[in-house]
Amino acid sequence: MPEPLTFYFDFTSPYSWIAAERITMIAARHAREVRWRAILVGPLMRESGNEPLLHQPLKGAYFRRDIARCFRLHGLEGRLPAVFPVLTTAAARTFHWVRAQGREPAQAFALAVFRAYFREGRDIADPAEIAALAATLGHDPDEVLAVTRDPTWKSRLIDEVERARKDGVCGVPYVLVDGEPFWGADRLDMLEAWLSRGGW
Amino acid sequence: MPEPLTFYFDFTSPYSWIAAERITMIAARHAREVRWRAILVGPLMRESGNEPLLHQPLKGAYFRRDIARCFRLHGLEGRLPAVFPVLTTAAARTFHWVRAQGREPAQAFALAVFRAYFREGRDIADPAEIAALAATLGHDPDEVLAVTRDPTWKSRLIDEVERARKDGVCGVPYVLVDGEPFWGADRLDMLEAWLSRGGW
Repeated sequence: MPEPLTFYFDFTSPYSWIAAERITMIAARHAREVRWRAILVGPLMRESGNEPLLHQPLKGAYFRRDIARCFRLHGLEGRLPAVFPVLTTAAARTFHWVRAQGREPAQAFALAVFRAYFREGRDIADPAEIAALAATLGHDPDEVLAVTRDPTWKSRLIDEVERARKDGVCGVPYVLVDGEPFWGADRLDMLEAWLSRGGW
Repeated sequence: MPEPLTFYFDFTSPYSWIAAERITMIAARHAREVRWRAILVGPLMRESGNEPLLHQPLKGAYFRRDIARCFRLHGLEGRLPAVFPVLTTAAARTFHWVRAQGREPAQAFALAVFRAYFREGRDIADPAEIAALAATLGHDPDEVLAVTRDPTWKSRLIDEVERARKDGVCGVPYVLVDGEPFWGADRLDMLEAWLSRGGW
């Protein structure tokens, strides 16, 4: 049985959303599963000396255009929310709590958060919004609210960011295929070629 | 007659080399020509607040690996030279002088510089090396040496960097297709899709 792919993402990243919508299908075509790993990419980007993309002169204008073009290319009806980037601590902690309940509930929750943010512009920084979203998937909203403040899940997210640092994550989406790293939604086609050919 | 593509590159950029080896063929498949524009990307990257890639923690290790993988994918026998990045002022000034003599000599010169640097590890910062390279293509090496110091070509290169800034260049390779910008060698397939479909 081949190893699952490891998929690092941050809920505020539009390219992570594109990858989230594509990665399961790509993996399935090669009889692979996907380990989803929500992180906060901010600390890792700051360590690389990078500001958020849209805050950078020159790059900001390019990425604003590119994000819209990439959404259209992949048939995703979304846009950059008014508040961008957004703090994803509550969403990521909740993700790891849902993840402890199984792979499929976690993927469904992750896609629901991405879509709420990029399709509907909902404020995913707000724990109440995360609890309401989780409730639509059958989770107990009061339990979710408690999770967003629980030291156990706070510390679990810190561990996940540390694991990402050890895996060399310098931005998201970042996918490991048998130890080979692919950074960026625009590398998913190359990643699939890597899966097909077993590397080169 | 459709507009030529505009291809911005810097001779020290490995991803620019990949694009340089592919862009003419991609354009030709869509009955387009290519305007090659050598620039110094350093000032534009600093304006975006970015250090050279390999100097950035986390990103450096990723890109070292990625560059080798991309060279192999595209069948380019090259490696990162010991001195990297390198100052490309002499090479870029000479490029614009050769460019004034025609499109094809300029492309041949550009490919010769990229290959000398990435295949043979030659010191393309050295005007004497640039003159020797140009001589193999039939240019007068003494004239080239003079060009590398000539205020006319110094000022021409400054103008080219300014034009790049106005075109929104935030990194290289950067290609404009009818005003639509594509940044990165990993966007050439998307660029070709754009040419095929006339945008989306």
